[in-house]
Amino acid sequence: MKYCQHCAAPITHHVPPGDDKLRYCCISCGVVFYQNPNNIVGTLPLWQDKVLLCRRAIEPMRGKWTLPAGFMENGETTLHGAIRETLEEAGATVIPSDCSLYTLFNLPYINQVYLFFRAALRAPEFHAGEESLEVALFAEEEIPWSELAFPVVRITLEQYFTDRRRGIFPVRMFDLQYSGTGLLSTFLVSSSTADFSNGTEALTKK
Amino acid sequence: MKYCQHCAAPITHHVPPGDDKLRYCCISCGVVFYQNPNNIVGTLPLWQDKVLLCRRAIEPMRGKWTLPAGFMENGETTLHGAIRETLEEAGATVIPSDCSLYTLFNLPYINQVYLFFRAALRAPEFHAGEESLEVALFAEEEIPWSELAFPVVRITLEQYFTDRRRGIFPVRMFDLQYSGTGLLSTFLVSSSTADFSNGTEALTKK
Repeated sequence: MKYCQHCAAPITHHVPPGDDKLRYCCISCGVVFYQNPNNIVGTLPLWQDKVLLCRRAIEPMRGKWTLPAGFMENGETTLHGAIRETLEEAGATVIPSDCSLYTLFNLPYINQVYLFFRAALRAPEFHAGEESLEVALFAEEEIPWSELAFPVVRITLEQYFTDRRRGIFPVRMFDLQYSGTGLLSTFLVSSSTADFSNGTEALTKK
Repeated sequence: MKYCQHCAAPITHHVPPGDDKLRYCCISCGVVFYQNPNNIVGTLPLWQDKVLLCRRAIEPMRGKWTLPAGFMENGETTLHGAIRETLEEAGATVIPSDCSLYTLFNLPYINQVYLFFRAALRAPEFHAGEESLEVALFAEEEIPWSELAFPVVRITLEQYFTDRRRGIFPVRMFDLQYSGTGLLSTFLVSSSTADFSNGTEALTKK
């Protein structure tokens, strides 16, 4: 960011009065340009015992399999964005009233928050959108685990198949963080089940 | 947005090739400036049977009571942002391992997503930050219902006192929408409890 969007004056990078963080600021017109994380919203599209995956036609991870997801747009809700991305990338329609928030992921190293919804497909009908090479339904034993595009996809699928055996689907939030050695680690931060250590009991016992 | 941040050329507002939405674009250097929703993250700070509220020192809703919350910053997780805002606005420290995701709200008419965490206070210690006039603990019967700043605060408090009686705290997502007559309506879109109509049963029956 080099120039002010409002007056075209050069931008400076400093801590504004009353703030404690470096911001892009225009000294000429006084505007501060805040930069905030983006939400990426998607679905886990379900048909009978199968999950719909898309093989990516674009970088990063071209050729790898993913769940349909993309940047949430202004003017839409998280779920509407997830449904739109499912239609765009997988040519698939889900039943809005059969969608439930399922996994959230914080990726602070790239300023992103992922939100995935479990979503019932209206019919086993789909086709590859512009950003997909192919789209297909996979039973659990058919999932291409070594060919998945992103950790958030792998974790969401792992949780789903585990939860399905128990018949309960807690809403879970994870943090993804790089360690000093460059390894990406995943931490379960929050779960809606009461048996989670930081859940109901811990709060009500105080 | 009038000028390009990168080259200071005038910005146009049109649908770029391969897109279907109006974007701010620079014809000179070719950059597209996407605008996306912001996350507002906060806590429901709990001490014994009481909830911590802040009386706002700033507009909008100066003088009204709210839960500590603010814009999520780059480089932090949703929970870290919520904990930071609680410290900044209420001078209060929560126990990170005793925090659980609780309510989400989509406000598409102002391009915002709210996320609140149930959060156990480390001690009954707090003080008004720069954006608060006062901070206080309230038992259920003491909540100033007619003096709350925002619907997201009222709904989160209502859910909490209802859930506390049952001892379970589902993660719920709501949409807030303005109707044609200008009335703000709230819709429950998703809940982590299995007894919700669009939850577990509906998905596994297919």
